[in-house]
Amino acid sequence: MTGNRAVAYKSPGVVEVIDIDYPTFELKDGPGVNPANVGRKVPHGVILRTVTTNICGSDQHMVRGRTTAPSDLVLGHEITGEVVECGPDVEFIKVGDIVSVPFNISCGRCRNCKERKTGICLNVNPDRPGSAYGYVDMGGWVGGQAEYVLVPYADWNLLKFPDRDQALEKIMDLTMLSDIFPTGFHGAYSAGVGVGSTVYVAGAGPVGLAAAASAQLLGAAVVIVADLNEDRLAQARSFGCETIDLRKGEPQDQIEQILGEPTVDCGVDAVGFEARGHGKDAGQERPATVLNSLMTVTAAGGGLGIPGLYVTGDPGGVDEAAKVGSLSIRLGLGWAKSLSFTTGQCPVMKYNRGLMMAILHDKVQIAQAVNAQAISLEDAPRGYAEFDAGKSVKYVLNPNQYIK
Amino acid sequence: MTGNRAVAYKSPGVVEVIDIDYPTFELKDGPGVNPANVGRKVPHGVILRTVTTNICGSDQHMVRGRTTAPSDLVLGHEITGEVVECGPDVEFIKVGDIVSVPFNISCGRCRNCKERKTGICLNVNPDRPGSAYGYVDMGGWVGGQAEYVLVPYADWNLLKFPDRDQALEKIMDLTMLSDIFPTGFHGAYSAGVGVGSTVYVAGAGPVGLAAAASAQLLGAAVVIVADLNEDRLAQARSFGCETIDLRKGEPQDQIEQILGEPTVDCGVDAVGFEARGHGKDAGQERPATVLNSLMTVTAAGGGLGIPGLYVTGDPGGVDEAAKVGSLSIRLGLGWAKSLSFTTGQCPVMKYNRGLMMAILHDKVQIAQAVNAQAISLEDAPRGYAEFDAGKSVKYVLNPNQYIK
Amino acid sequence: MTGNRAVAYKSPGVVEVIDIDYPTFELKDGPGVNPANVGRKVPHGVILRTVTTNICGSDQHMVRGRTTAPSDLVLGHEITGEVVECGPDVEFIKVGDIVSVPFNISCGRCRNCKERKTGICLNVNPDRPGSAYGYVDMGGWVGGQAEYVLVPYADWNLLKFPDRDQALEKIMDLTMLSDIFPTGFHGAYSAGVGVGSTVYVAGAGPVGLAAAASAQLLGAAVVIVADLNEDRLAQARSFGCETIDLRKGEPQDQIEQILGEPTVDCGVDAVGFEARGHGKDAGQERPATVLNSLMTVTAAGGGLGIPGLYVTGDPGGVDEAAKVGSLSIRLGLGWAKSLSFTTGQCPVMKYNRGLMMAILHDKVQIAQAVNAQAISLEDAPRGYAEFDAGKSVKYVLNPNQYIK
Amino acid sequence: MTGNRAVAYKSPGVVEVIDIDYPTFELKDGPGVNPANVGRKVPHGVILRTVTTNICGSDQHMVRGRTTAPSDLVLGHEITGEVVECGPDVEFIKVGDIVSVPFNISCGRCRNCKERKTGICLNVNPDRPGSAYGYVDMGGWVGGQAEYVLVPYADWNLLKFPDRDQALEKIMDLTMLSDIFPTGFHGAYSAGVGVGSTVYVAGAGPVGLAAAASAQLLGAAVVIVADLNEDRLAQARSFGCETIDLRKGEPQDQIEQILGEPTVDCGVDAVGFEARGHGKDAGQERPATVLNSLMTVTAAGGGLGIPGLYVTGDPGGVDEAAKVGSLSIRLGLGWAKSLSFTTGQCPVMKYNRGLMMAILHDKVQIAQAVNAQAISLEDAPRGYAEFDAGKSVKYVLNPNQYIK
Repeated sequence: MTGNRAVAYKSPGVVEVIDIDYPTFELKDGPGVNPANVGRKVPHGVILRTVTTNICGSDQHMVRGRTTAPSDLVLGHEITGEVVECGPDVEFIKVGDIVSVPFNISCGRCRNCKERKTGICLNVNPDRPGSAYGYVDMGGWVGGQAEYVLVPYADWNLLKFPDRDQALEKIMDLTMLSDIFPTGFHGAYSAGVGVGSTVYVAGAGPVGLAAAASAQLLGAAVVIVADLNEDRLAQARSFGCETIDLRKGEPQDQIEQILGEPTVDCGVDAVGFEARGHGKDAGQERPATVLNSLMTVTAAGGGLGIPGLYVTGDPGGVDEAAKVGSLSIRLGLGWAKSLSFTTGQCPVMKYNRGLMMAILHDKVQIAQAVNAQAISLEDAPRGYAEFDAGKSVKYVLNPNQYIK
Repeated sequence: MTGNRAVAYKSPGVVEVIDIDYPTFELKDGPGVNPANVGRKVPHGVILRTVTTNICGSDQHMVRGRTTAPSDLVLGHEITGEVVECGPDVEFIKVGDIVSVPFNISCGRCRNCKERKTGICLNVNPDRPGSAYGYVDMGGWVGGQAEYVLVPYADWNLLKFPDRDQALEKIMDLTMLSDIFPTGFHGAYSAGVGVGSTVYVAGAGPVGLAAAASAQLLGAAVVIVADLNEDRLAQARSFGCETIDLRKGEPQDQIEQILGEPTVDCGVDAVGFEARGHGKDAGQERPATVLNSLMTVTAAGGGLGIPGLYVTGDPGGVDEAAKVGSLSIRLGLGWAKSLSFTTGQCPVMKYNRGLMMAILHDKVQIAQAVNAQAISLEDAPRGYAEFDAGKSVKYVLNPNQYIK
Repeated sequence: MTGNRAVAYKSPGVVEVIDIDYPTFELKDGPGVNPANVGRKVPHGVILRTVTTNICGSDQHMVRGRTTAPSDLVLGHEITGEVVECGPDVEFIKVGDIVSVPFNISCGRCRNCKERKTGICLNVNPDRPGSAYGYVDMGGWVGGQAEYVLVPYADWNLLKFPDRDQALEKIMDLTMLSDIFPTGFHGAYSAGVGVGSTVYVAGAGPVGLAAAASAQLLGAAVVIVADLNEDRLAQARSFGCETIDLRKGEPQDQIEQILGEPTVDCGVDAVGFEARGHGKDAGQERPATVLNSLMTVTAAGGGLGIPGLYVTGDPGGVDEAAKVGSLSIRLGLGWAKSLSFTTGQCPVMKYNRGLMMAILHDKVQIAQAVNAQAISLEDAPRGYAEFDAGKSVKYVLNPNQYIK
Repeated sequence: MTGNRAVAYKSPGVVEVIDIDYPTFELKDGPGVNPANVGRKVPHGVILRTVTTNICGSDQHMVRGRTTAPSDLVLGHEITGEVVECGPDVEFIKVGDIVSVPFNISCGRCRNCKERKTGICLNVNPDRPGSAYGYVDMGGWVGGQAEYVLVPYADWNLLKFPDRDQALEKIMDLTMLSDIFPTGFHGAYSAGVGVGSTVYVAGAGPVGLAAAASAQLLGAAVVIVADLNEDRLAQARSFGCETIDLRKGEPQDQIEQILGEPTVDCGVDAVGFEARGHGKDAGQERPATVLNSLMTVTAAGGGLGIPGLYVTGDPGGVDEAAKVGSLSIRLGLGWAKSLSFTTGQCPVMKYNRGLMMAILHDKVQIAQAVNAQAISLEDAPRGYAEFDAGKSVKYVLNPNQYIK
């Protein structure tokens, strides 16, 4: 038995690296564990030695105190690992396998899993459909920003990389398969991006950049990325995107300069509920701005993919409506334009295998696109702070020195 | 040359039957005609002697004064007719054909038409994509609640019935192909209804009833229709639907009594922006109530079809937001449940041929489902008034005595 | 420990009811068991007391000696049962559940299962993708025409009926969910049947009748069923199908009399490789006749669903080509008409839940459609003989007197 | 009125450049014109001055004498042109537009066109659904390997390039939009190619190379192209494809060397009915070889896209079956693997706009991929001869010196 260092949320603005128990094949009580999940047996699980685990923008919502996350909740839902122990029911996954863990936890036995809707599995979160590691109100599965982590339903959940050496060589790309690459891809895919599409991606954080890279992979003709942060826009330009600085105002004029028309075929919301205003409102929180702007810039008949997170409760919301997740949406405009909207967690398993193949055969450079940088587990607090300050970096934690 | 009696909007609450010009192959100036469309040549059009033309719930928005429709605008976008004259460019449609007219006017030449998105044709309405006969801000094409009407791009737009006698025999069913049957079907289809689905339809007006009948035709296991009007609910029960009386409050408890669980697979909004509250708010206009209720009762992973009309401007809206088509939507809830939303006009041509086949081969009794009743053209004002008062009837005007 | 009576193939034309071992959670050696599967542990399995188990047309290929099935192979892949014992890894299925067993055995852990392609699971049959109970070259899983049967990967494979009493009341319908109802539905669905379609189903055996009933459930306008056997055609007419007697020759003329045109939108091959000629060739085996005929009668742009079984080896084939599964197909005709073809085992899990809902809510009468009749397990040999002789009955074995 | 030089088929192996009439808005009698089309008025047409027109592999079937094409049939169905005259019914296309002509002629008014199935339009070819310029049994529309050509239903058929100068600059790429780029894309798309797929393309002629480039554009991880011609394989390698020399035998071993497994996800037949054997049969015509080989190398559950042409009659077929388009297909193998098959002409209009966008925004280099080379119209006979001899070039005729 070994120790287990892990990144925990302490209080608004504060994360620390703490000591937690080494995992066993049982979900024990702890911060944020749903009472109905306490004591749950996990013979179908494996224990991973973490190869990489990334800091995600959705972690920041908790860290900023915009949720009810309790102190000492262990963070981390973007996990790649090496299998070091298999539960007695595991049949196909083996010790030594290098695997990607979809951030959605799913059982592989319920109706939704059978329909590939693994983002809303019915059996892992007693509160409601859908779950994730290290996240508030998601059942209490312990986060993976740690040296070791338990993954339930391992034969179902895990994506095994075909070759260990190749996997470790491309690990900075492959680590994006646990969340942001499929999530960005889902945004582009569900917006209807195909060969020749013009695409507008709101938000140039890691998910937005992943959506942009995904749109390119899907054959988009033009990908336009918009943000309020010049560093992030520069990052988007580095791999061939057009960019729009939203501090200059609403995007439609800038789109017209790029495309010759003020609308695009497909729109992606890679921002979510903590959106800021455009133009002179750039400093203000305006939770509906991104969606309303997307309805303006997406052409009639277009699709909106909405991987950006919207929540049912937000204690820090700008008004009473926002506190319960209600936003003032220009639905009349969307209806007049016959738009369609796809929301929700990305069902990672629908996409991760194909994206892995694209990485392994050098069809996409996702690590470069999102500016992935490895830091040590102990440096996680710095990573959180810098990422929150707007640095255009995707931080990859390296708890067990797999990355040299 | 013959006269042409037609139903016109006069002022809020008032419709009258007036004399208008017999159509020619040109769109002439008149009430509500977009200046850019005035004088437009229509050599590709046909003139129809109207067989049937129905009063639609969306006409009521104009008649109630909830739009900027001008006085003397000729109403009517649900048209079935006999071809009496063909423009010089018409090649396949012939004089004597009995035809259904999709309420969306489309050109059959633009990108959107080529992609089957005929609800947002780019060439018929100078204001924005999409058009319809006899409707405010839709380009100014003269309405079809008249003895004669011009249909442009006739080879593209018209659905010819295979046999004249059979068509006239089933005319009370076939007349629903111009709008509400495809529109209701689109609502069900875009909500993802398939064999074995459980479905909730908000609104038991004609479109809601058509959506319910469509859901049955698509193989739904259970169709639940909700309304505030007991006559309309009785109509829904008459063809095998379960019903919910929204005057008793929110629908989820009643759904649970019917299904054993409080959620359905698919939800349809057949109400639109003039929605009323549920329970004790039943008398109040609550424009977002239907959408928010649908998000509650639709299971995670479900789809929402939204054929109910939402508008970009509503002078009679309950508040400033509603006046510009903004609604307070519980998007956080929808996102947490990974719902998808499909909005906009039904692209009638995508569905009308299949639905015609279903009618001709007795697979659906749509006239019975919506309680179709024929009245004379001169009786249209009475029809409008009774329908507005909540009578559960779909009024079919009979301007030329094709219906005996 | 109890005994276990079971139906076994003995030799061409001969089936017998024999005594076999009561199942354990291990796949033991026996007739037809793949050596690589011998000794396979099945902790994820359950033991069912068989409620119903049906005789299938594809069993007849073995019984007629058209395969390499060994003597004493226990038959039966259409199984509904009551759970009497759960393996240690089973989490959600419970003793006492009444469940439908998809005839395809699948693991719920491989790439294909994750993509809903459960008919070609990679982990259950060492020979090739795809498996079934009681079938030659399918891995050796023991057949279910027995009092008790082992079902592996039970949490994944089993469809639990929501209510025991309701299930037993509708058992003659629900028993069709294990194979022929989804299989027929897959044929119709993959042929592109939708609301208003015209459909031609070749073959009025149980799968053909199930395809016809499925086409109706999908909203088809006209369903035409063709066969050489008048009793089976009468059965098809009993639930509203049009029929064609192929002893009178090729079907196109008869189709034209029914529809007014000689082609249909969608074609289904519910016959497979033991097809007989039409017209004067009606007594002769003509393995490509059905496919070639379908290409003639399906309109340009149509789809062909091919649930009928075609095999890679047929010792009794009419010529050398047929013996290795090669058929002389008029592909030039199919290509000129832009037809598409979908072949292979039905992935039952994709459809069985929705079809169960349709049964439970009385939207389909599948037992009546296929003329289901219950007989005792001991009567199975008679059932095989009568079915092989062309009797239009779907035999349901009743090994444990659940059917009164 | 000006003259009109055109490429005509004279006799097996012989093409000549001849003088034909300048087009008018009527389809006049001539070699290969269907009697029912003689005298057809074309007020909806435009006359193009040909910018480019390519020699196609399917023209070679006629030139080799493998069809019933009459002498003096004007060849050419791959046409890009400048509009020089508009018929009276043309509304949106204007003189001076530079346009791509889909090789399928379609009316934009029939059921199939409305369903986007423009490869099987019902109104342009009296013989059967589907038509093309300059092709035997396709209605008799005059071919476009000429200085001027008539295009019917111009508002529907033509794809207008947004900018004249840009179009002429990229003309060697854009010229591929009339046929081979969409045709190859259709092959890849209908085979199910998506992000991360492994793909096998049989045939490295222009359509095969276009399919390979399309598969890359769709995000394929690995594209493997097979042929018997080393020059063509070298061409495939030039843009990143893996290649297989079929003179060395069946492809599965070579696939295993490339991928580590002997099968691919998706297969494309870019050869058609004049297929040659593999390995020691490399010199022999073996019309079913490609299809049977694809069934072997495509993994269970995969898709086969079949843009390669198969015909209903082939006077030069290797045996009686081949002469009527019947091939000995290993359907049993395909069925056991649950393969699906999509055949027929590519419906160009479904894809050409998106592919145009991909070209205009430099997302694909299709001219390089197929090794496009411009030659004069008078040089067409040499182009035919060299292409038939296996030269890996896509010949683009330049009848009016638009290409400098």
